[in-house]
Amino acid sequence: MGETFPMIGGVSEYSYTKNSTYQKQASNAVKEMIDEAVVESLDAGSTSTKVSIADLGCSVGPNTFFTVQNLIEAVQKKRPSETLEFQVFFNDHSSNDFNTLFSTLPPERQYHAAAVPGSFHGRLFPRSSITVAHSSHALQWLSKQPQGAPNEGRVHNRGAPEDVVKSYSDQYEKDLSCFMRARAEEIVKGGVLVLVVPGTPDGVSHSDHPAGVMFSYFGHSLMELANEGVVDKEKIDKFNLPIYAPAMGEMKRVIENNGCFSIEKMELTDPMSKVDGPIDVANLIMHMRAGLEGIFSAHFGDSVVEKMFAKISDKAQEISHFFESGFSKSTQLLVVLKRK
Amino acid sequence: MGETFPMIGGVSEYSYTKNSTYQKQASNAVKEMIDEAVVESLDAGSTSTKVSIADLGCSVGPNTFFTVQNLIEAVQKKRPSETLEFQVFFNDHSSNDFNTLFSTLPPERQYHAAAVPGSFHGRLFPRSSITVAHSSHALQWLSKQPQGAPNEGRVHNRGAPEDVVKSYSDQYEKDLSCFMRARAEEIVKGGVLVLVVPGTPDGVSHSDHPAGVMFSYFGHSLMELANEGVVDKEKIDKFNLPIYAPAMGEMKRVIENNGCFSIEKMELTDPMSKVDGPIDVANLIMHMRAGLEGIFSAHFGDSVVEKMFAKISDKAQEISHFFESGFSKSTQLLVVLKRK
Repeated sequence: MGETFPMIGGVSEYSYTKNSTYQKQASNAVKEMIDEAVVESLDAGSTSTKVSIADLGCSVGPNTFFTVQNLIEAVQKKRPSETLEFQVFFNDHSSNDFNTLFSTLPPERQYHAAAVPGSFHGRLFPRSSITVAHSSHALQWLSKQPQGAPNEGRVHNRGAPEDVVKSYSDQYEKDLSCFMRARAEEIVKGGVLVLVVPGTPDGVSHSDHPAGVMFSYFGHSLMELANEGVVDKEKIDKFNLPIYAPAMGEMKRVIENNGCFSIEKMELTDPMSKVDGPIDVANLIMHMRAGLEGIFSAHFGDSVVEKMFAKISDKAQEISHFFESGFSKSTQLLVVLKRK
Repeated sequence: MGETFPMIGGVSEYSYTKNSTYQKQASNAVKEMIDEAVVESLDAGSTSTKVSIADLGCSVGPNTFFTVQNLIEAVQKKRPSETLEFQVFFNDHSSNDFNTLFSTLPPERQYHAAAVPGSFHGRLFPRSSITVAHSSHALQWLSKQPQGAPNEGRVHNRGAPEDVVKSYSDQYEKDLSCFMRARAEEIVKGGVLVLVVPGTPDGVSHSDHPAGVMFSYFGHSLMELANEGVVDKEKIDKFNLPIYAPAMGEMKRVIENNGCFSIEKMELTDPMSKVDGPIDVANLIMHMRAGLEGIFSAHFGDSVVEKMFAKISDKAQEISHFFESGFSKSTQLLVVLKRK
């Protein structure tokens, strides 16, 4: 199992629970597409009224609860004449704050809830026991830091040398292959696997999504701290943020190599299509902090990370200008697969 | 759903994790009997290699892990020629410390682990989805405080007036009926339900097990604090510890009224049969504290409870003498049921 850096648990100011509306908006942008795709594709379990749904990389809610409710409604739309019984498995690393997840479960839920701890790069469920599996904003996490040449003051593959970029894509393919192999065993014939991941349009460099831009500001801010003598430059060179946004072609290749699923839908979408007005950068920084503070702190220590976020916040206006200058918005990849 | 007072979570001095060897010894006393009974009775799922095991009222380990391992080995003994795949559901109230449970899961486990939050007095799983269900040292917890006449300085039904005793047994029968109704829907035909509960020999008063003796010392200590002006006597009168040890006849009546299970085994056992030497009372007090501090604190406040435990500890020698004077040792009821 790889290293794990859970989202910030609990319900405090910097918690994921309080800072996940960005992910919610991004999910809303594909909600109807998922709904339609599940209704069209699902072709499983007609001999049983029991439907098992898994959300892989669920974090601590509330987004996972909306997602699961959408999936349940889609399945009910597909099989309207039956009284179905739903069991929902919320999965994340065992260090995830499941206590908070359980204490915020919707009281009026119409399903049996269960939590499954463990890495989704390995097996989590018995063979052929899952009807619909879903993973949103989770598969971009690599199971470990890509190991390559020093990354020259960067913390990511944006603008990095060729061999750094390659070590990222190699690790992603390895991880995704493990993920697909496990899901192929767990999902029933005719069952559906829905993936929502940050994606990069084919032929475009890995820099063109808001997260990529943000990551380069993380690097800039750390380098400023290095110049001020707060942190060693060597320490920055050794750090590669284990997050990757694949091109569509990369994703497709791994799925086809696996061979157990047919591709029902695969398209790049705009995660902010349901949002009016410009991106709220201060808010976006808070969101990234909820998700990323843990991994930066483990490497650089709390006090450096505190200063890094302060520097990034100072650059909010500059970042806003960058976002307004316009670049590819198709940065969220939606993939719907059916188990053959 | 009733009130919930979870065991003390985490791994600190007073935690359940560090103070549950008494429950472990009590489980050891029936381990082989359960093993045999499961091998003899189980008659389910031969068409599938998937085996679902549920531990109801699992708390935070480590006892639940030993229990589950024993059950898995028993099922494997019954079906030695098959490669079985086990999924284990750890159930307790949603306020249970599942984070600690997950962080202490045996790394070498040969099963898929899941946690299911919620009261076992209601439905937890889809219909016919469980092969073997087990509950040990949990069903004695009533879903709420028995409501009856003032209990005159007692905190339990030991030596209480007739109507207090009846309000306890009525609440127990109601709760157990709900439990049995839910399990009858969830356990597959031929599946097994194992219950280990504190029990009272038929025709003997409700006072004859170590817990009952201890509870009366809780009452004495609180009354001393009332005399010292630390706590109101009225407050003590309003408190009934929601714990009950049924007579075998009561247990049998509820199971027969339910009608969905055949009784494969029902007998009173000595929970300390595998322990040499006298009971370690200081240790026993620590164990009761891990399990009961929450419910006493909610009613009386932390400072009263601190003083109550200090007073009980002062009486350790007196309690030891009582235990050594000898009384019925058959205070643990083992019940093995098969779903018809």
